[in-house]
Amino acid sequence: MSRFFSSKYKNLIPYTPGEQPKDTQYVKLNTNESPFPPSAKAVEYATEKAKKLQLYSDPECRELVKTAADYFGIEKDEILFTNGSDEILNFAFMAFCDNEHPAVFPDITYGFYSVFADLNGVPYEKIPLNEDFTVNVEDYIGINKTIFLANPNAPTGIALSVTDIERIVASNPDGVVIIDEAYVDFGAESVVPLIHKYSNLIVTQTFSKSRSLAGGRLGFGIASKELIADMNTVKYSTNPYNVNSMTMAAGVGTLLDDEYMKENCLKIAENRQWTTEKLAEMGFTFTESKANFIFAKHSEADGKKIYLKLKEKGVLVRHFDSARLCDYNRITVGSKEQMQVFIDTLKEVLEEIL
Amino acid sequence: MSRFFSSKYKNLIPYTPGEQPKDTQYVKLNTNESPFPPSAKAVEYATEKAKKLQLYSDPECRELVKTAADYFGIEKDEILFTNGSDEILNFAFMAFCDNEHPAVFPDITYGFYSVFADLNGVPYEKIPLNEDFTVNVEDYIGINKTIFLANPNAPTGIALSVTDIERIVASNPDGVVIIDEAYVDFGAESVVPLIHKYSNLIVTQTFSKSRSLAGGRLGFGIASKELIADMNTVKYSTNPYNVNSMTMAAGVGTLLDDEYMKENCLKIAENRQWTTEKLAEMGFTFTESKANFIFAKHSEADGKKIYLKLKEKGVLVRHFDSARLCDYNRITVGSKEQMQVFIDTLKEVLEEIL
Repeated sequence: MSRFFSSKYKNLIPYTPGEQPKDTQYVKLNTNESPFPPSAKAVEYATEKAKKLQLYSDPECRELVKTAADYFGIEKDEILFTNGSDEILNFAFMAFCDNEHPAVFPDITYGFYSVFADLNGVPYEKIPLNEDFTVNVEDYIGINKTIFLANPNAPTGIALSVTDIERIVASNPDGVVIIDEAYVDFGAESVVPLIHKYSNLIVTQTFSKSRSLAGGRLGFGIASKELIADMNTVKYSTNPYNVNSMTMAAGVGTLLDDEYMKENCLKIAENRQWTTEKLAEMGFTFTESKANFIFAKHSEADGKKIYLKLKEKGVLVRHFDSARLCDYNRITVGSKEQMQVFIDTLKEVLEEIL
Repeated sequence: MSRFFSSKYKNLIPYTPGEQPKDTQYVKLNTNESPFPPSAKAVEYATEKAKKLQLYSDPECRELVKTAADYFGIEKDEILFTNGSDEILNFAFMAFCDNEHPAVFPDITYGFYSVFADLNGVPYEKIPLNEDFTVNVEDYIGINKTIFLANPNAPTGIALSVTDIERIVASNPDGVVIIDEAYVDFGAESVVPLIHKYSNLIVTQTFSKSRSLAGGRLGFGIASKELIADMNTVKYSTNPYNVNSMTMAAGVGTLLDDEYMKENCLKIAENRQWTTEKLAEMGFTFTESKANFIFAKHSEADGKKIYLKLKEKGVLVRHFDSARLCDYNRITVGSKEQMQVFIDTLKEVLEEIL
């Protein structure tokens, strides 16, 4: 830390992204990427734009907004695109959290929420999940704070029902509720249609998972036009040209090729099913995941040891050191071939450990 | 504004980007874009990456950092890439400005500085430029605040000498000095080499202007490793994957094809010279621009009227409404063909107005 660094950030602990190894060729099941390439249409559109990069990207993302509005059945002023969904989440922390509106989220969830809160100097409360990692819905009823809920949750993959989310949103008319649907396409149900019923609801999604555009950086929020306008005020005061033109075009191509995304999600669900069956046979238990990852622990083998041994053998999964999570590993569901390698390697690991 | 919007932003006035018209085909000389397409290598590299967008971009931008470190003769931990140079400027406002370290910049300069200051709740002081729009260097000597200077300045194009900048940096050992070199390649001298001599200096640049990648969104800061580390703390608490992988690759391609950039800058300088000569013949005066734009006013015709008439006839330039600037227009220097159209149209406009 330099002596110039503002004291407001002296205790800030940044988010740690999943490892992105450059040298070794790993079977990479640690950052919930898709095993499938982007839609051919996305590649085609992005490639076309690459030739015209001398021109600024459209700060209003007009073509993408129009395509997405049609896709989701919403108005054009009810959506805002960002440089990955981390940016829309940060905009929500900036716009709707302060001393009068503290943030609230589960103790176990996407690790970035508390970093965003710290970054913005916002007070926050972590509500413990139940012992089985489910959300206790009652904890969020009528609290009228700014609530962040990942649905499905990370790293557990457990989803809330639309009915439960609606209860939370309806009971907090004086608090904004942000539902982070990064993983929704893999088996949970989206609450996007509820934005027309509740003016305090924001739904965020990403193109990084089901839509195979992690490297393009594209996320968005859907909400009432008033909430979108507030987040646009933040955007135009931060980075008006926040989405590059190649990714904008890739986003259009992806939405126009929805069939491809849906097929890929089905394959992931099949591979998730296959992998959990194999894991069960090997003595693992896991949460009921509706996401493209499995959160599993072994009855006897240590979670961290499994992670390290797998890495040694060329398979990367994600391990979290915190007390409630350290028995587990989060395994991205990849292609059938990747999952076969994972299961085979895991068998070797267990033989060595046990 | 929704009733949920945090009171801290209630008075925030966002930055207004230059018009990006979609419907009419303008000769677009309003956002200082390059008239030349990106380097063929940039297009090739970006296109290659488009096929692999299912994988996250490298948060450390390792390949690009290595290429840039070689290019600039610096160490790898002395540079940080961002989603356009607006992002690195915002990081500098976040990291190095607060109540104890107010921001200071000229009254006439890049309009985003005051927006960043307001966004971050940072006090700031605007120091008036001299009557001829030059910086009075003495105003910045020994003030030990966080100083932002665009060099060349916008929208005037006037450049400070390396000697003057070094005096400012050397005299403010307890204040960070940010030199924003967005337009430096068109005729000013970069102070990048000074970062090894002064630990309080940050130099920011962009790939949007001389490097023809405005639509890709790529900027960076060069500074001592301590200042870069602080800004990395902010980055990893904001958006770790802030640069998409296509643009990262395009950046590498661009730096490896430096000859192309240099040729383009020479052409812009020639077209700037040609255009200013024509403008002088028509009764315009202008500042001595070292950038890819000309800041010009007519002895008799009203600045806003000229802007509106040009727009009517399909030529977009940038006009600013503020008192000291409203007589002027900022005209991006484009291709020879574009400048010919501009001059021809301007002749018509003057005939109509005068």
